[in-house]
Amino acid sequence: MNEKPLILITNDDGVKAPGIRALINYIRPFGRVVVVAPDRPQSGTAHAVTIAHPLRLELLSKEEDYEEYCCNGTPADCVKLAFKIVMRRRPDFLFSGINHGTNASINIIYSGTMAAVLEGALAGVPSVGFSLNNYSLNADFGPSEQFIKSIAANVISQGLPEGVCLNVNIPDISVEKIAGIRLCRQAAGTWQEDFDEREDPNGRKYYWMKGVYVHVGNGEDTDQWAVEHNYVAVVPVQFDLTAGKALELLRNRF
Amino acid sequence: MNEKPLILITNDDGVKAPGIRALINYIRPFGRVVVVAPDRPQSGTAHAVTIAHPLRLELLSKEEDYEEYCCNGTPADCVKLAFKIVMRRRPDFLFSGINHGTNASINIIYSGTMAAVLEGALAGVPSVGFSLNNYSLNADFGPSEQFIKSIAANVISQGLPEGVCLNVNIPDISVEKIAGIRLCRQAAGTWQEDFDEREDPNGRKYYWMKGVYVHVGNGEDTDQWAVEHNYVAVVPVQFDLTAGKALELLRNRF
Repeated sequence: MNEKPLILITNDDGVKAPGIRALINYIRPFGRVVVVAPDRPQSGTAHAVTIAHPLRLELLSKEEDYEEYCCNGTPADCVKLAFKIVMRRRPDFLFSGINHGTNASINIIYSGTMAAVLEGALAGVPSVGFSLNNYSLNADFGPSEQFIKSIAANVISQGLPEGVCLNVNIPDISVEKIAGIRLCRQAAGTWQEDFDEREDPNGRKYYWMKGVYVHVGNGEDTDQWAVEHNYVAVVPVQFDLTAGKALELLRNRF
Repeated sequence: MNEKPLILITNDDGVKAPGIRALINYIRPFGRVVVVAPDRPQSGTAHAVTIAHPLRLELLSKEEDYEEYCCNGTPADCVKLAFKIVMRRRPDFLFSGINHGTNASINIIYSGTMAAVLEGALAGVPSVGFSLNNYSLNADFGPSEQFIKSIAANVISQGLPEGVCLNVNIPDISVEKIAGIRLCRQAAGTWQEDFDEREDPNGRKYYWMKGVYVHVGNGEDTDQWAVEHNYVAVVPVQFDLTAGKALELLRNRF
């Protein structure tokens, strides 16, 4: 390749989160990097897009082969603005994360990190989301470095199948304990929500959402199993939600 | 069935939208209905959940076999609150909509209406989302009545396969022109975004998102084709995003 690839980096924890700072450091050697990330945490925004109010972009820094912006929108907004306004073209690759917390199993459907990745894939850009299995802002991203670099190099040199992006989940353990990289399918699981019921000073009730993740199925070929068994889990992801097997089951009913 | 089924109704256009008022009218004859819907429009919120601020519920009306609440959260929040706080159990069925605007093809991934449906399916509740292919608040929901009632009766009497929910899209045409109900897969498509670039009174730039839907593939077995050819499109939907075919393609790379 004559020219360095153009790479977009984003996340959902906001431009100041340690996870995206680590990812920027790992990815910058691979090409020209443009960061467009939310100006504040946007966890749990999923694939939300902002249509009811205007979006703003702020240039935070500019160096050789590097530009960094924040945006008042969601991760999906960041990607759309990056393509159309900041870069005025589709980048060659998109990397999102490193998310503070798992996006394995069903967590993908709530994930802003992975929504950004799906936006990339929808536009035909090879795109990968990285998540560390630790929600803390003080998580240690060091052990993820060599695996993120290896997966990024793999995707930059070979691309990805059309319409497919990657959901990469990294266990929160020291580097010597990581067993390797494992290609997986998405595990079945669900969140068992509960709500803290409280009263405000005026006697009106309000509710805080909380919940625990519950395994439903968890074969050895799933991402949840892999992360729990010290593997970096790589799931190829698509945006076709058709339940193919159900098409036959329902054929005679509609 | 001895007892009337317990049915949750929600949407993403807000509790006052004409679409949900129509759906409530169509579904009430089938059982005990509880409505928990957003207190204002939440289009484009996708599967967002509210974890950074508290949620509130407001009882709007209560009659025999009918209760109606609004909530300051997203459609997914509404479903979670309905299950845990309002009903204190899972309902027997969940219906979401009628959405003002299409959720066929790729629109499903941005849809709050369908996020509510996926939440139901995740909890094991047979769940269906209805959308009319007209974004106007003045859309005519009349032609949809017989098809919605027929699909609801079908699901209430026979249930749905585990982990499968339905995305139903209805063409915006008179009832005599509707060609029937057609089981489909999700069409491939994308949104080609553009942004209106403007300046505020202080000379700072801001952007309004706008876009047009672009077909990518559109076989006769897809929802987009069906709606464009006057059919009510029914797509069975799952929440496993694994790109199964890519697992083999990528096997030797990771």
